[in-house]
Amino acid sequence: MNTKLTFLFVFLLGSSLFGQTSSEDQMVLKIKEIFEFSQKQGQAYTWLEELCLGVGPRITGSKGHHLAEQWAKATLKSIGINRVHGQKVRVHHWQRLQERTDLLIDGKRHPLNALSLGGSISTPPSGIRGTVVEVQEFEELAHMDTAALSDQIVFFNRPLDPGHFDTFKAYGGAVAQRVYGANEAAKYGAKAVLVRSMASGINEFPHTGSMYYKEGIKRIPAMAISTADAESLSDLLEKQKVEVEIFSQTRIDSSWDQNIIAEIPGSTYPDEIILVGGHLDSWDVGHGAHDDGTGCVQAMQVMQWIMESGYQPKRTIRCVLFANEESGLKGGLAYAKRSNELNEKHIAAIESDRGGFTPQALGIGGSGTKYLTKLKKVMAWSTFFNPYGIQLRSGGGGADINPLKSQEALLIGLIPDSNRYFDFHHSEADVFDAVHERELKAGAFAMTALVYLLDQYGTN
Amino acid sequence: MNTKLTFLFVFLLGSSLFGQTSSEDQMVLKIKEIFEFSQKQGQAYTWLEELCLGVGPRITGSKGHHLAEQWAKATLKSIGINRVHGQKVRVHHWQRLQERTDLLIDGKRHPLNALSLGGSISTPPSGIRGTVVEVQEFEELAHMDTAALSDQIVFFNRPLDPGHFDTFKAYGGAVAQRVYGANEAAKYGAKAVLVRSMASGINEFPHTGSMYYKEGIKRIPAMAISTADAESLSDLLEKQKVEVEIFSQTRIDSSWDQNIIAEIPGSTYPDEIILVGGHLDSWDVGHGAHDDGTGCVQAMQVMQWIMESGYQPKRTIRCVLFANEESGLKGGLAYAKRSNELNEKHIAAIESDRGGFTPQALGIGGSGTKYLTKLKKVMAWSTFFNPYGIQLRSGGGGADINPLKSQEALLIGLIPDSNRYFDFHHSEADVFDAVHERELKAGAFAMTALVYLLDQYGTN
Repeated sequence: MNTKLTFLFVFLLGSSLFGQTSSEDQMVLKIKEIFEFSQKQGQAYTWLEELCLGVGPRITGSKGHHLAEQWAKATLKSIGINRVHGQKVRVHHWQRLQERTDLLIDGKRHPLNALSLGGSISTPPSGIRGTVVEVQEFEELAHMDTAALSDQIVFFNRPLDPGHFDTFKAYGGAVAQRVYGANEAAKYGAKAVLVRSMASGINEFPHTGSMYYKEGIKRIPAMAISTADAESLSDLLEKQKVEVEIFSQTRIDSSWDQNIIAEIPGSTYPDEIILVGGHLDSWDVGHGAHDDGTGCVQAMQVMQWIMESGYQPKRTIRCVLFANEESGLKGGLAYAKRSNELNEKHIAAIESDRGGFTPQALGIGGSGTKYLTKLKKVMAWSTFFNPYGIQLRSGGGGADINPLKSQEALLIGLIPDSNRYFDFHHSEADVFDAVHERELKAGAFAMTALVYLLDQYGTN
Repeated sequence: MNTKLTFLFVFLLGSSLFGQTSSEDQMVLKIKEIFEFSQKQGQAYTWLEELCLGVGPRITGSKGHHLAEQWAKATLKSIGINRVHGQKVRVHHWQRLQERTDLLIDGKRHPLNALSLGGSISTPPSGIRGTVVEVQEFEELAHMDTAALSDQIVFFNRPLDPGHFDTFKAYGGAVAQRVYGANEAAKYGAKAVLVRSMASGINEFPHTGSMYYKEGIKRIPAMAISTADAESLSDLLEKQKVEVEIFSQTRIDSSWDQNIIAEIPGSTYPDEIILVGGHLDSWDVGHGAHDDGTGCVQAMQVMQWIMESGYQPKRTIRCVLFANEESGLKGGLAYAKRSNELNEKHIAAIESDRGGFTPQALGIGGSGTKYLTKLKKVMAWSTFFNPYGIQLRSGGGGADINPLKSQEALLIGLIPDSNRYFDFHHSEADVFDAVHERELKAGAFAMTALVYLLDQYGTN
């Protein structure tokens, strides 16, 4: 290609977007500096190793969570932040005690790769035995002969649709089976449910996750089985009646978790808060690496950059590691409640809770009459992100930060490449080794660069 | 966020780019259809498994390459393409026979993870023994005491710079050590070279690759060692003198490979050719999965979409699997030469040779007086690619398609996420399991969608 002509073309494109070319050039260099810091000095990967291999899984209310709180406080203090504290949050601590799920064929047991869903009640000590009825949609239940369901085990087997670009959309199209499947099946007299794991591909790992019981409907146990087992079971059901025996002992207690909050005060507008965060709790299998160890250590790396680069933020930058995202969002709700009581003003909040993969976009959500004006201002920074493969998009947020809506903050979600996420999510496969150092740090870079721009220019 | 306002905003953004909203909407749906086909029906992943696990490595001139040619012809015919043929290309077949590289410490041998570089001559049968001199830059050699180099083994240890967003830039900043290191060291009397592997991280796999001997300079053997061994060796050299013994037996013969060419003739403008391709040859270790099995099967999947979707291309679509990319580019040169002799006219050529990872961009290169006009036309299609995380960028091409420059074709490179590429490149780690099905097919989608748009609208 003709380099001179291309240069002219790119230059013309560029200069049409910005008046002040020299300050734009400086900004481009600053963003490059942040990228280099993120990859060369960023500690996210080392911290993730500590959190995954040192602390391990940390389901809400557990000892693991309490260890993670201590680790996070100590680590944030170790980079020189003075203002680090915990905010107590009352939670339920659900525990998986013992479980087993067997196919019964010709009097022989064939174990399935299964996990009780989070929140599921126990079976009786003798287990639950029943014949399996497969469905793909809740509506099918209403059209079935009630006798076909009563006292049976319903098997929800709708797969994630691979035709979606965004695997979170595929997940969204299937996850009601996991969350509400037990309720729907219980309405028709079923005594337990098996749910195909919310996984993109076919593999051996069952994926757990939350499920809820509605008031007034009988509570029945719910287990996830691996997608490989779901396929085999479905094949078998085409040929014959299948009996399954489920045994699951679980327990639920009250407990306390903490949101971990670290703050670097702003020099000029200390009352304007920019939040970065992820959630500290995970499920009880694997390491909770992509969900959401990566979000935590990325948010922490944003703070590390401020502390170590010598940058003096104008606004207050706050890192929040939320409790209880997986089982009720009580951390995010408590944080926003307290913030509102203190009459605080968050101008923006950025959450990373879609895995530690290569960042593809930052989704800029928000509400209020000034949202579109703010959005337009932030979208103009696309030019700084595009060279790193990152788009700025309208619409976004995150489960833990969404309660800050009432402060009319910009609610921003980091959107990484989603192709691999549901290979790992809520399963034994979500371990430290599933995270790639460069990809993780690239996500931390995206968050750091956006915090820097928000801090420099504000949102108004 | 306020969904209504956001919709309005996005709509206004969109309609400013296009006059004919209804035909734009149809195009958006068509692109979505292509995405769904790519993920649900695309055969790229199954084909990659056949090529990696059935055929295996296929260094230029080898039996493996000849098997791959047969496999590719048969597979392209199996989807209903009649016009499939091979174009013979004269190549050199370099073979690794036997090799061993040992650290000698206190009379004991400590094997290093090493691979002879492609094209390297043999050591004498008794091997080469020498003390190791570490350098990071060629210039250091000129400033050294000649006695310090003469009869020694030079160890080039400049790592890939992790501060680059694009790991190909990091590779570009270090690869001269591999390609020209032996020449540079030989000028000062060295008798062999060790080269730190061209890998992003620290791991145990040595990475091979091409090296060249310049006329008039003594030829000396060259080995790559793993980055982990390079780090250990460098640490050791800080403390003491280190002796290494290299033994390498290689062989070079003449042979014939084939470019594999499959063509679907155009209905309206059969003389305008749109090419999609990758290269069929690989190195002799691993499966050549990301380099470049993925490019081959992605190009083949473009053809599959045309054959199976019922789409009738207006222009001629040609899939070319090039021979000899890794060792002289003779396939690409022979293809362009023959095409020029036949007075053919390629309007565009798309190559995938940067791994089967999630596509991040399509780089649109070219030359000639009309390049900028064509570029502007293609860049306007960005709106169709952005929802899939894919940018269109000016500048691009590919090693095998660049010789088509004289036809003033648009020379287009698929640019996937590069973060993981140099974990695998030219090493035993570049195997089928290192490729993710969704990511691979997303790349094939990007190529298919662009072929579709180029075919519909041309480049003028």
